[in-house]
Amino acid sequence: MTDKTNILQEFEPLFFPKSLAVVGATSDESLKVNIGNRFIEVLLEFGFTGKLYAVGIKEGEVSGLKIYQNVKDIPSELDYVIAVIPNRLIPQLVEDCGQKGVKVIHLFVSGFGEIEDKMGAELQEEILHIAKNYGIRLIGPNCMGTYCPSARLTFAVGFSAVAGRVGYLSQSGGQSILGIKEANRRNIFFSKVVSYGNAADINECDLIEYFTNDPETDIITAYIEGTNHGPRLFELLKEATKRKPVVLFKCAATEGGSQAAVSHTSAIAGSDLTWEALLQQTGAIRVYNIKEMFDVVSVLQHCPEIRGLNTLLVGHGGGSCVQASDDCCRVGLKMPILPAELRQALMQVYKTDAGNIFKNPLDINPYWGMDKAREAFSAVAGWDGADVILLLSTPEQTPFMPREFEYKVTTKALIEWAKLSPKPVVLALNVNTMPGDDGIPEKSFIRLQEAGFAVFPSAERAATALTRVYRYYQWRRRKGL
Amino acid sequence: MTDKTNILQEFEPLFFPKSLAVVGATSDESLKVNIGNRFIEVLLEFGFTGKLYAVGIKEGEVSGLKIYQNVKDIPSELDYVIAVIPNRLIPQLVEDCGQKGVKVIHLFVSGFGEIEDKMGAELQEEILHIAKNYGIRLIGPNCMGTYCPSARLTFAVGFSAVAGRVGYLSQSGGQSILGIKEANRRNIFFSKVVSYGNAADINECDLIEYFTNDPETDIITAYIEGTNHGPRLFELLKEATKRKPVVLFKCAATEGGSQAAVSHTSAIAGSDLTWEALLQQTGAIRVYNIKEMFDVVSVLQHCPEIRGLNTLLVGHGGGSCVQASDDCCRVGLKMPILPAELRQALMQVYKTDAGNIFKNPLDINPYWGMDKAREAFSAVAGWDGADVILLLSTPEQTPFMPREFEYKVTTKALIEWAKLSPKPVVLALNVNTMPGDDGIPEKSFIRLQEAGFAVFPSAERAATALTRVYRYYQWRRRKGL
Repeated sequence: MTDKTNILQEFEPLFFPKSLAVVGATSDESLKVNIGNRFIEVLLEFGFTGKLYAVGIKEGEVSGLKIYQNVKDIPSELDYVIAVIPNRLIPQLVEDCGQKGVKVIHLFVSGFGEIEDKMGAELQEEILHIAKNYGIRLIGPNCMGTYCPSARLTFAVGFSAVAGRVGYLSQSGGQSILGIKEANRRNIFFSKVVSYGNAADINECDLIEYFTNDPETDIITAYIEGTNHGPRLFELLKEATKRKPVVLFKCAATEGGSQAAVSHTSAIAGSDLTWEALLQQTGAIRVYNIKEMFDVVSVLQHCPEIRGLNTLLVGHGGGSCVQASDDCCRVGLKMPILPAELRQALMQVYKTDAGNIFKNPLDINPYWGMDKAREAFSAVAGWDGADVILLLSTPEQTPFMPREFEYKVTTKALIEWAKLSPKPVVLALNVNTMPGDDGIPEKSFIRLQEAGFAVFPSAERAATALTRVYRYYQWRRRKGL
Repeated sequence: MTDKTNILQEFEPLFFPKSLAVVGATSDESLKVNIGNRFIEVLLEFGFTGKLYAVGIKEGEVSGLKIYQNVKDIPSELDYVIAVIPNRLIPQLVEDCGQKGVKVIHLFVSGFGEIEDKMGAELQEEILHIAKNYGIRLIGPNCMGTYCPSARLTFAVGFSAVAGRVGYLSQSGGQSILGIKEANRRNIFFSKVVSYGNAADINECDLIEYFTNDPETDIITAYIEGTNHGPRLFELLKEATKRKPVVLFKCAATEGGSQAAVSHTSAIAGSDLTWEALLQQTGAIRVYNIKEMFDVVSVLQHCPEIRGLNTLLVGHGGGSCVQASDDCCRVGLKMPILPAELRQALMQVYKTDAGNIFKNPLDINPYWGMDKAREAFSAVAGWDGADVILLLSTPEQTPFMPREFEYKVTTKALIEWAKLSPKPVVLALNVNTMPGDDGIPEKSFIRLQEAGFAVFPSAERAATALTRVYRYYQWRRRKGL
């Protein structure tokens, strides 16, 4: 393992390049989808903090930048190169970059180790050899590269410029983009993201090691299809989880997934049982898709340590409370019944239990008056039988109220309750498969998030994330961390 | 078991009442949320096909209807009564209805067998006794009642007036409303829906029996928390599944769910292992939430018989294809690899496999030209190694394309491919947790549905539904049905 200072210094140009050239630019306007030009546009728009250069076959200009015909022609030092040219031209580019003193090359282009033709693997070996000779670090090939909001370095339109505390490494380019968008919409922001593709040089181990040591990263997230460095990864994960949570989406876990992964990123997926054992022993939190990944991050970011699984579930509407109770219990939460004195207190608020449930779950209905609902919640919020509180809103189940009103009232209730809660609290807004194209459900979701809580689209998703985070803290306690 | 003619005749007034009175109406405008008045409004707005009457304590008028002070004062015959008055007034109402010759009373009101005070259970016994004396059938108490689009009978605003071929019985009122809204948005329409609450009289067995015999119902769906009639239900389900699919959401399956269900609908949930065995033996399709219920209905309605689990998965974007392959394989679908000659045919279309996957999954990218994508899909669509085709769209994973464009192109591709498919085909539109408040993802979902296909918000949901429907057909084949 590299020592801490080394890897932070070595990867500095990967995240904070002082100068960057996009190789594959053109002034030919007839080429509608020139990826090189798009990279330049998006970097300019995002406000890249370093110097930006364009390199292309022909002289000319793009987005106000002069097009150089070779990286060696660039009149200043060059840290970082994004390569968007055909695979067969890459060896010469790496050679030129070596002579220029480039530190990092991001190979966007595909057609290397992941294709069936063995020429691809040979080409990958060749460029790796040249790069090593010059001490150049490679990202990719076949990947999106680096997103670092504080350096205004990015690889797609629409990413947030807000710098957060989550690091994300993704073997897949598409999953890196989907993940960043999923996270941003859920008020989760990144320190750095690297889409690393075929991992010819910089691989999952290097990035885990970097994020473990990175003082700007509090939580590590990872999408991994396979590794060629099992033992090293195991050691690095053990070290990482001692210092910060690692949320790992190990994909290509089945036969179908594995046969896809080889063609996708040349990854050897490995036995899923081995992976499962590895992850359990290291204390990494395993998830099964991108959404679950950021479900877990939401709980980690918004809740204090989860110390137990005893859950108080508060909702409205009997059927949705029964279903949510099942969902909670199925994933491992526990729902002890409220003691008699607290049930009596609730009875005093409502005079009757007709139309309510006063056991756990609590079915207390904000439509019947917010004051009563607040009084009822306050009576039980401090109950020491619960380690955590799950608040559930299920609009669109009343017969006569307008849709907008239902969302408004239940959203308001959840925020009020959540603010009164002395325990770790998570919120769920239970919506239909397609919530409707009027934006009402989304706006409720956004309001709940802006109030500062972890928000989920179902009790099941909330409960699953809570259970996973609890197990991580339990693992830490057992290790005496 | 009642014979076929009897139950259809007996339940005729439950779904097609010639006259209906809402008891609990008022002309007092200061009462903002009078449920009786709301029932009247919604029935008038929906265009109820029978005669509608209002009954209330005081004389007056509501929505243009004269308010009678007793059902007995109504000057014509009366089939159906909706009771929205306090629980203690119900025995007298049932007595009056008996004298009037009313056939069905829907007891919307709660405060009977489901409350802790034993007075509730006693009251329920009392009204049941009076009703039986007069031959009145009761729905409820503590429920929403009947929705029958072809009679324009409804219990909530916003339900579709389109009559479909799905019957739905729900022990929970909220789950009945959520279910109808979920279904309607997915182009699924109902023959009849009954929310039956405490099931004092008409219960899950009666309704399963009715729907089994109902010529207007092709698929039976049910939300059940518990039953007091296990052996009868078992026999009825065995009979039902011989004639049509039964999709059953057995809720209150865990300790937490069961303790909630008793307070919700007085249901005794029973052991979930017993339920699981019962459902497996009867061939009913078990689901675990409302969304999954209509996922299964979607496949049943849109696909021919599913004869095997071998699946051809076609998507775009490597990572999302790898993940979808995992999701498919995890729930039981199989993904055989494409034979060499078909892979060669794909290679000929694209000249290279760089950036694509040609194995199964197929990663063929509509952004690189619809003509090529169509040619590629056509080359493999008839492959006899697949029993079913799953088409996956994952927008928002490209770096530079506008969001709207991504949805447009991939939606168009899915529809074109689906129309070319000679096999049963299902579609998945993979969206973020909160897809965005601009309505773009929803509109794509709607377009895919309107093209006439079963559409899901993830490959996982599609695969789960396919597997369940396959098992139902497999069960039928084993039984020689």
